[in-house]
Amino acid sequence: MEENKIVFIGAGNLATNLAKAFYDKHIKISQIYSRTEDSAKSLAEAVRTDYTTTLEDVINDADIYIVSLKDDALIDLMPRIIAGKENALMAHTSGSLPLDIWPDSIKRKGVFYPLQTFSKQRIVDFRNIHTFIESNNSADYLLLEKLASSVTDEVSELSSEKRRQIHLAAVFACNFTNHMYALAEKLLKQYDMPFSYMLPLIEETEKKAHVLSPREAQTGPAVRYDEKIINKHLELLSNEPEMQEIYQLISKSIHKL
Amino acid sequence: MEENKIVFIGAGNLATNLAKAFYDKHIKISQIYSRTEDSAKSLAEAVRTDYTTTLEDVINDADIYIVSLKDDALIDLMPRIIAGKENALMAHTSGSLPLDIWPDSIKRKGVFYPLQTFSKQRIVDFRNIHTFIESNNSADYLLLEKLASSVTDEVSELSSEKRRQIHLAAVFACNFTNHMYALAEKLLKQYDMPFSYMLPLIEETEKKAHVLSPREAQTGPAVRYDEKIINKHLELLSNEPEMQEIYQLISKSIHKL
Repeated sequence: MEENKIVFIGAGNLATNLAKAFYDKHIKISQIYSRTEDSAKSLAEAVRTDYTTTLEDVINDADIYIVSLKDDALIDLMPRIIAGKENALMAHTSGSLPLDIWPDSIKRKGVFYPLQTFSKQRIVDFRNIHTFIESNNSADYLLLEKLASSVTDEVSELSSEKRRQIHLAAVFACNFTNHMYALAEKLLKQYDMPFSYMLPLIEETEKKAHVLSPREAQTGPAVRYDEKIINKHLELLSNEPEMQEIYQLISKSIHKL
Repeated sequence: MEENKIVFIGAGNLATNLAKAFYDKHIKISQIYSRTEDSAKSLAEAVRTDYTTTLEDVINDADIYIVSLKDDALIDLMPRIIAGKENALMAHTSGSLPLDIWPDSIKRKGVFYPLQTFSKQRIVDFRNIHTFIESNNSADYLLLEKLASSVTDEVSELSSEKRRQIHLAAVFACNFTNHMYALAEKLLKQYDMPFSYMLPLIEETEKKAHVLSPREAQTGPAVRYDEKIINKHLELLSNEPEMQEIYQLISKSIHKL
């Protein structure tokens, strides 16, 4: 891949993890752009390249631009992002934006979507991350597929529609799951007990999902709709009406499923 | 602990895991009771002991009875469980029943509560499982503590009130988390995609909880309340009103927290 000049537009959680994964595989990154100097500089230093905080200073002669911005920012900044780059392959990393978010003036459109929750503080191993590729032409599809394959063993083609569906499922499996942890953490703080009590439990819950269907693996008061326990729990939550509502709604949903 | 005669009343998920953990540490179990012949027999065979499916045939001369039944069953069967066992230590394993669920005729009351999600199909390593002990007298507290310490390094005293609180937090961290997996699984089935796509994601979400506070680790559209994505997701869920409601409620709760 060393023949391709790659530029990152964006230096957030996903961009940071992806750029570092490329760097570890000796794939050169030619420039990093971020509006935020700290982010731009720190990622550029990590992958030994240049950076800019001005979109107009992004080089125009790269082959591939990996655009990893928040959806709104990508749309807002679109004219400035693509100006002068009409011959390059533009690939975004969003789960919810379609391929055709790229305007018609861009002939080489791409999506490079690694399905994972990324934080700058935790650099993840890319090898097992399902990465979903889309392009409007087969040459660029192959180019992105080759690029993805250099960091992960799990590369598939996926349409914009399917990508949006998978992103919705991921919100349940990741963000909403994490919120259940956060609510447990909040309760334990109120009760003056450490969240660490939960760790073997959430670890085992996660491990089970690898071997049993989550629907079949369900345990606890809701699955047998044990009203005595459910009512006691709702009583304990009497000063937390929102958590009470969540408790009731999810318990009903568990019982129904 | 070999001097103590131990009987298990119940052969469900928790009893199966606990009895096998004892057996592995060479702690003899004198008898297994379960209403269900299959469960009684299969656990008795695994830990090389006798079994009965008749409560009246449970031996009366054991030192410790570990009563691991569903809360309702424990309450319903109480008179038959305790008959003739007034001198023994009776310990239940419920997260939500208090110590004083044992009637006054029982002088030696105990609780032995390992905080974990158990399945018969998956025998877990007990070593890291927080096990919470309670008793109405210090001799039996020490006896239960010693018994727990033979299988796990994490033994603490916990009052009935605190145990109920921790059980509530565990419902969020385990059962509700698992339901988020189950809803993702349901969506992906509708969309004709494998649940295995989610596995690296849920694994990383779980791992993060070991190093970052879940509240601080939150990512995704809800935390920044990205209405465009949220509305697209709600639209995708238009034929699933219940999941729509869960999506909305949890997204608001994430944003608020």
